[in-house]
Amino acid sequence: MCGIIGIFNHPEASNLAYLGLYAMQHRGQESAGIIATDGKQFTSHKGMGLVADVFPEETIAKLRGTRAIGHVRYSTTGSSSLENAQPFMINYSLGTLAIAHNGNLVNAEETKKELVYRGSIFQSSMDSEVIMHLVACSREPKLIGRLADALKQVKGAFSIVFMNENELIAARDPQAIRPLVLGKLKDTWIVASESCAFDLLEAEYVREIAPGEILTISERGIKSYFPFPAAKPTHCVFEYIYFARPDSVVFGETVYDVRVRLGRQLAREHPVDADMVIPIPDSGTPAALGYAKETGIPFDLGLIRNHYVGRTFIEPRSSIRHFGVKIKLNAIRSILKDKRVIVVDDSIVRGTTSRKIIKMIRAAGAREVHVRISSPPTDYPCYYGIDTPTRKELIASSHTVEDIRRYITADSLGYISIAGLKQVVNCRECFCDACFSGRYPISFPGLEQPAQPSLF
Amino acid sequence: MCGIIGIFNHPEASNLAYLGLYAMQHRGQESAGIIATDGKQFTSHKGMGLVADVFPEETIAKLRGTRAIGHVRYSTTGSSSLENAQPFMINYSLGTLAIAHNGNLVNAEETKKELVYRGSIFQSSMDSEVIMHLVACSREPKLIGRLADALKQVKGAFSIVFMNENELIAARDPQAIRPLVLGKLKDTWIVASESCAFDLLEAEYVREIAPGEILTISERGIKSYFPFPAAKPTHCVFEYIYFARPDSVVFGETVYDVRVRLGRQLAREHPVDADMVIPIPDSGTPAALGYAKETGIPFDLGLIRNHYVGRTFIEPRSSIRHFGVKIKLNAIRSILKDKRVIVVDDSIVRGTTSRKIIKMIRAAGAREVHVRISSPPTDYPCYYGIDTPTRKELIASSHTVEDIRRYITADSLGYISIAGLKQVVNCRECFCDACFSGRYPISFPGLEQPAQPSLF
Amino acid sequence: MCGIIGIFNHPEASNLAYLGLYAMQHRGQESAGIIATDGKQFTSHKGMGLVADVFPEETIAKLRGTRAIGHVRYSTTGSSSLENAQPFMINYSLGTLAIAHNGNLVNAEETKKELVYRGSIFQSSMDSEVIMHLVACSREPKLIGRLADALKQVKGAFSIVFMNENELIAARDPQAIRPLVLGKLKDTWIVASESCAFDLLEAEYVREIAPGEILTISERGIKSYFPFPAAKPTHCVFEYIYFARPDSVVFGETVYDVRVRLGRQLAREHPVDADMVIPIPDSGTPAALGYAKETGIPFDLGLIRNHYVGRTFIEPRSSIRHFGVKIKLNAIRSILKDKRVIVVDDSIVRGTTSRKIIKMIRAAGAREVHVRISSPPTDYPCYYGIDTPTRKELIASSHTVEDIRRYITADSLGYISIAGLKQVVNCRECFCDACFSGRYPISFPGLEQPAQPSLF
Amino acid sequence: MCGIIGIFNHPEASNLAYLGLYAMQHRGQESAGIIATDGKQFTSHKGMGLVADVFPEETIAKLRGTRAIGHVRYSTTGSSSLENAQPFMINYSLGTLAIAHNGNLVNAEETKKELVYRGSIFQSSMDSEVIMHLVACSREPKLIGRLADALKQVKGAFSIVFMNENELIAARDPQAIRPLVLGKLKDTWIVASESCAFDLLEAEYVREIAPGEILTISERGIKSYFPFPAAKPTHCVFEYIYFARPDSVVFGETVYDVRVRLGRQLAREHPVDADMVIPIPDSGTPAALGYAKETGIPFDLGLIRNHYVGRTFIEPRSSIRHFGVKIKLNAIRSILKDKRVIVVDDSIVRGTTSRKIIKMIRAAGAREVHVRISSPPTDYPCYYGIDTPTRKELIASSHTVEDIRRYITADSLGYISIAGLKQVVNCRECFCDACFSGRYPISFPGLEQPAQPSLF
Repeated sequence: MCGIIGIFNHPEASNLAYLGLYAMQHRGQESAGIIATDGKQFTSHKGMGLVADVFPEETIAKLRGTRAIGHVRYSTTGSSSLENAQPFMINYSLGTLAIAHNGNLVNAEETKKELVYRGSIFQSSMDSEVIMHLVACSREPKLIGRLADALKQVKGAFSIVFMNENELIAARDPQAIRPLVLGKLKDTWIVASESCAFDLLEAEYVREIAPGEILTISERGIKSYFPFPAAKPTHCVFEYIYFARPDSVVFGETVYDVRVRLGRQLAREHPVDADMVIPIPDSGTPAALGYAKETGIPFDLGLIRNHYVGRTFIEPRSSIRHFGVKIKLNAIRSILKDKRVIVVDDSIVRGTTSRKIIKMIRAAGAREVHVRISSPPTDYPCYYGIDTPTRKELIASSHTVEDIRRYITADSLGYISIAGLKQVVNCRECFCDACFSGRYPISFPGLEQPAQPSLF
Repeated sequence: MCGIIGIFNHPEASNLAYLGLYAMQHRGQESAGIIATDGKQFTSHKGMGLVADVFPEETIAKLRGTRAIGHVRYSTTGSSSLENAQPFMINYSLGTLAIAHNGNLVNAEETKKELVYRGSIFQSSMDSEVIMHLVACSREPKLIGRLADALKQVKGAFSIVFMNENELIAARDPQAIRPLVLGKLKDTWIVASESCAFDLLEAEYVREIAPGEILTISERGIKSYFPFPAAKPTHCVFEYIYFARPDSVVFGETVYDVRVRLGRQLAREHPVDADMVIPIPDSGTPAALGYAKETGIPFDLGLIRNHYVGRTFIEPRSSIRHFGVKIKLNAIRSILKDKRVIVVDDSIVRGTTSRKIIKMIRAAGAREVHVRISSPPTDYPCYYGIDTPTRKELIASSHTVEDIRRYITADSLGYISIAGLKQVVNCRECFCDACFSGRYPISFPGLEQPAQPSLF
Repeated sequence: MCGIIGIFNHPEASNLAYLGLYAMQHRGQESAGIIATDGKQFTSHKGMGLVADVFPEETIAKLRGTRAIGHVRYSTTGSSSLENAQPFMINYSLGTLAIAHNGNLVNAEETKKELVYRGSIFQSSMDSEVIMHLVACSREPKLIGRLADALKQVKGAFSIVFMNENELIAARDPQAIRPLVLGKLKDTWIVASESCAFDLLEAEYVREIAPGEILTISERGIKSYFPFPAAKPTHCVFEYIYFARPDSVVFGETVYDVRVRLGRQLAREHPVDADMVIPIPDSGTPAALGYAKETGIPFDLGLIRNHYVGRTFIEPRSSIRHFGVKIKLNAIRSILKDKRVIVVDDSIVRGTTSRKIIKMIRAAGAREVHVRISSPPTDYPCYYGIDTPTRKELIASSHTVEDIRRYITADSLGYISIAGLKQVVNCRECFCDACFSGRYPISFPGLEQPAQPSLF
Repeated sequence: MCGIIGIFNHPEASNLAYLGLYAMQHRGQESAGIIATDGKQFTSHKGMGLVADVFPEETIAKLRGTRAIGHVRYSTTGSSSLENAQPFMINYSLGTLAIAHNGNLVNAEETKKELVYRGSIFQSSMDSEVIMHLVACSREPKLIGRLADALKQVKGAFSIVFMNENELIAARDPQAIRPLVLGKLKDTWIVASESCAFDLLEAEYVREIAPGEILTISERGIKSYFPFPAAKPTHCVFEYIYFARPDSVVFGETVYDVRVRLGRQLAREHPVDADMVIPIPDSGTPAALGYAKETGIPFDLGLIRNHYVGRTFIEPRSSIRHFGVKIKLNAIRSILKDKRVIVVDDSIVRGTTSRKIIKMIRAAGAREVHVRISSPPTDYPCYYGIDTPTRKELIASSHTVEDIRRYITADSLGYISIAGLKQVVNCRECFCDACFSGRYPISFPGLEQPAQPSLF
């Protein structure tokens, strides 16, 4: 998971890119970078860490020009080092080309091997560099032709902004696995992973970049190309469940609304008599509100989050690991004492965090703890840009729901069904459910196939 | 406002101090520091910024010994520089003494002038250094005598942990303006500003340090001294309203519970017909829940907070100032469109932030916006450790509630009354209400007196 | 000008490389770097600045393995940035290859253009990267073949050490423009720019790498290849005059001895009656001693050098520029007062420094100042690795000796003749004299030809 | 040993201080600092390391005002840390006072104890801080009175520049142990440790600060005070032998001239038949020239110094320690082979370095090696500001000259005599010879007395 942004035609392009990345910080905290251009000079700054730390004010001032692209990275391929931070740029026979890429390619290794054999020298372990070498080696006379040429040779998820001397170019894979949206602020075009970037910049949401679209933005206006064979969209449903910000419009809908509906559906599938509904803050909050609304059971905050921690999923810090979730959450005894509590969360990965939270809630005096999860059991790894553990580590891949309930010591446990989830997202056909079903929409050599056919 | 911690008798004392400071990060983000001792060597590390950034793992490992004190600072007196970071230590005729101090002295300047005249050389602009010079100059033969001698000469708010070669010593001013609590983890004594530090350390809450108490902790056990004349407690009520973490037990009660009751009282004082109650997250959330519970109007989240920003009150950042509250909050159109909305917050300082938030809510389509505030109008500055603006900047000091309502463009505006507040906190006599009433419990030369008598 | 070193088969290879670079620090102060390998892992460290600053002790300890190559750089091509520091390494179809290169290629731009057109992506502006892309694109099955293939395509000066998983490989251009020598320390082979590196390591000088030789060093021993057409050597005579350390054996002779002989020859060509001979320290000292010995005029030190400055030629520092040579040298009044002084230096580039020094010597009371230069007038720029100013800036390119004498305000001025110089170096045919004569031994497109035929 | 400078009345005072410190870098490489003032604000910058590294251009620009004092430190008392870097300043009852101090106090510990007992809090382990506390505690109404009051209470060596809002004040102990000179550049007064600073600034040498003088420089001109009882000067003779720059005028004479005379005297005391005289560069060079001049034996350079190393005496660097003097010096075989060599150096401390150099000279082929030392045997430690080893480590304290000769493996060894030295310096009575004789001019409790009376 990463976040990308592109700004075209604004006197403070890099400042807008900075703010847009800031709004999308949740999509990657490992590194941040911006490349800006005035059409002649390209200036670049990248660093490990959060956007606000990587870009002190004076640094942004040096990134001059009316165009900029930016990137926040959460490591998926490539080791965690500055060398793998994005955006990056190359000099090639048509000039300079910069790239910011969200998504994973499934055939990067094979393609890289061929390029290296041919004499290409790689500088990083990012699969995005494969795309750039394909562009540099293409024999097409114009950039748009080279981009089409290069992107046809790769498989997997890609939402990309490119920038050369004159143009900003957005590209999205035909399955449209990761989000990418187009916005406008007066005469300025903006391309971003999520619409929350537009809200901060007070820009207007225009539309999604279409599946398989390559959109060029230049002083002569915008122009669309569709060089890829048509394909069925398979959006990543986990953007709704967990990744995207609740206030973003993703795949055409406000994420918050989808999450509240997931909570309502969960309540219909797994009702239980209890005194209160509490969320695991903050990712579980909308679904918990939905559950409370559907059932009429009072909503309350029984767990308080330390605001100075990032998401558990994303920020390991070995020195304090043994304190685990206590670093992030604290239970309020005066609220929970002697109560029957429904706890709503978005997912269970390994089960260890859930187990600790339930222990903490019980230690605060709760009489019963019922766990409700707003996604189906996560059973298979993701190959399209999410850094999931291996299948072995996913508790749901080898345990029944009852096993998991016992492990996390809940009084009851209910997951939303795949069918229920698809009903909520309102387009049964348009989403990838590989992490629940093992049905991978893009096949590739070496793919670990599910042992039995998906039940869905 | 600052946070302090002291650890006595634990093999990883500095690690515990680190975690405790981490839990109390909300009490100060400007600087963080720890001094540890094994009884012979004192080692110190301080830095500007957040606890997790100031203390990489290897740094904590160097802070050896079974005793440690720590401090997180939000600038009140003294300029914002490393020189003013705490804890700090001195060598004096009885050996070494380290201090971590929360609170403000109102007679620091006068006392400092006398000490300088006498020949004392100051290294910082912290009023805490005054206490240390008083200790160094005292002619009492033992430390406890010198501490009593020194602390009797200062006026104002102080919650302090001292540490010398053998002892950890906690001291609290007779009015007990700032919190200070005692905890225990097996054989380890812990003193901290807030009990949330104990929860993270899995320590047990024992009691408050009493008003005017000096408590010595040594290998021979703990011992209390009460060297000051008895005084009526005047706790800072803003600890309940805003400062303390909701999960802390402060002045004998869980903060979250007090805040929910403030919301209920607010609903009784200022009811209004509406479609939903939303909080300004996260500080307004418990009061908003209380308001919703009392009235039965549905609670929802209409504003989403960017998790990568600190509290507005605390973290200015000039480069992005003009984006103001948009950096922190975003309104969800699909929730707010065409709705009559009650917005609950803890306070209004200058009014500019509230005005921007209401503008944002209306831009998202809300039909009516009713603002409810869980504190009385903040009319007077604080001299006991809170960095409030000058009186002139406080909108309530020169405007009526109706003026403020018009300025922030709300359809209606209601503050809780001082009487209502006192009823909720359940001890009408024990709290300082100077910031609402101008009745300062500790007088001093140069104090700006209220123009008219308090109405309360 | 740069310095390179390679170490083969020593348990502390990177430490030896560090010390060798330290001894050759005079060949480049802009950046320093080392790559080491144990045959599997390659580790690298580079930085801007001096060897001792770039490599703290713990850094060297991390550069593990029995083989290492190192580089100190003084910018010739490529901008002055870490990206252009050496050594660097690539991954290509035969594995990993590291390079450290001294010298300049005269056809780098043309070759780079062809490679880029083919699809190669360059990461730096160093012409050394051209060689690596040629190696990566070569279709030869073995590395030695690829190296021969690549080096045949480039023109100019190169003294190189390569390192792959198994071998250390030294290569030198057929004209042998820059020095490169082979040494041995027990079972360890060492390749270095200058023999002073061997002295520090207590290694034995074996021989020069021959003109046009590619020497592979592996566990099976050493092996020589001569893939290039035979060519007449054209060593850089400025290595004798200025660049190399006086204690190094270069092109078969100790530099100090050559310099003393240059001073003697200078005395024979340009005698003058005077009270003392003083050098411009330290580069002029051996020639001044030679002049004094030849004439019997007493040698003394009239100028004292500040030890904390690098060579004027090499270290500009804008903040103190207007103090010019005073930063580096101070004249001793008690020595110079009322004396007729002969001042010996190695060269005059722009004339401004000489002018300032003479002013300083006169201000200290000297009655006459006679300047003697141990090189012929520097008239033409160098294209083989020396960062000379453009022709326009070279005072000798547009002024007669008498003009220069007047400009620098000397009472007399004498340069050694080209013929005298050739006689001293004892091989009239083996040296490049292009910077004096304009006769460039390696021609290339775009070469600025001398207006009139060389007189030599 | 340290270097100090003060600038009064120049628009770029801190820039002049910077350059002056640069010229005196040899007096201390551990830390550097400057404090500047415009009469209202005092700005300070200090850092560990060399002047040029501690002060980038933009830093000097921030040190505004027409007055500045500066300091380079070589650790004598106090540990090597930034906390002990100078200059430093205090706020006291008369305002602000800054100090830069060269020299050691012999009663610092006792005085500090009394001050601490009284209640003074020390921030560093520098004995200079003692002076500042004495000033702060003095009851004299004016600064000049307080300075006299304070300096009368300390014993030992001090050359000091003070700076307050209006004045620059120079002070020197009555024995005038360390140098301190007054210079002028148009309307600017300059006080510095050595006159080489004046040469760089193109300022004129005016005179020495007199023994026991306190000199105030203000807009009303300069004024001298002599508050101390008269005392016989006991200048440090090692300033001539080793410390000072050869181009400085120290204690009234050019250091270079004194050193040449020391070499001549040495030749008269210890002649020997040989082929050449070579110096240990650079500190032995003037004495070697004197020796060669006196005897007529040819002077040559047989040892080449790596310009990128500081003085051995001063810069330990543990990682390369075992290479010892090879890091700094290299012998030239072609010069030394089969020769009888006289090697001249300024002193022998432990003997280990000399032993290594002689080994190196013999390895280069010398037939005989005769060592001549331009100081008497160093037998006793210094208490007035030089960081000598303990007596036990000084080879001359426990070995005869013949023992030492054998240890360093010389064919012959000759030291200048104390009597010869005194004759050269031309004032038998004015110099401290404690390090040779054990006769300490300033006694103090705890002084280690020589076992037998001095022979001189």
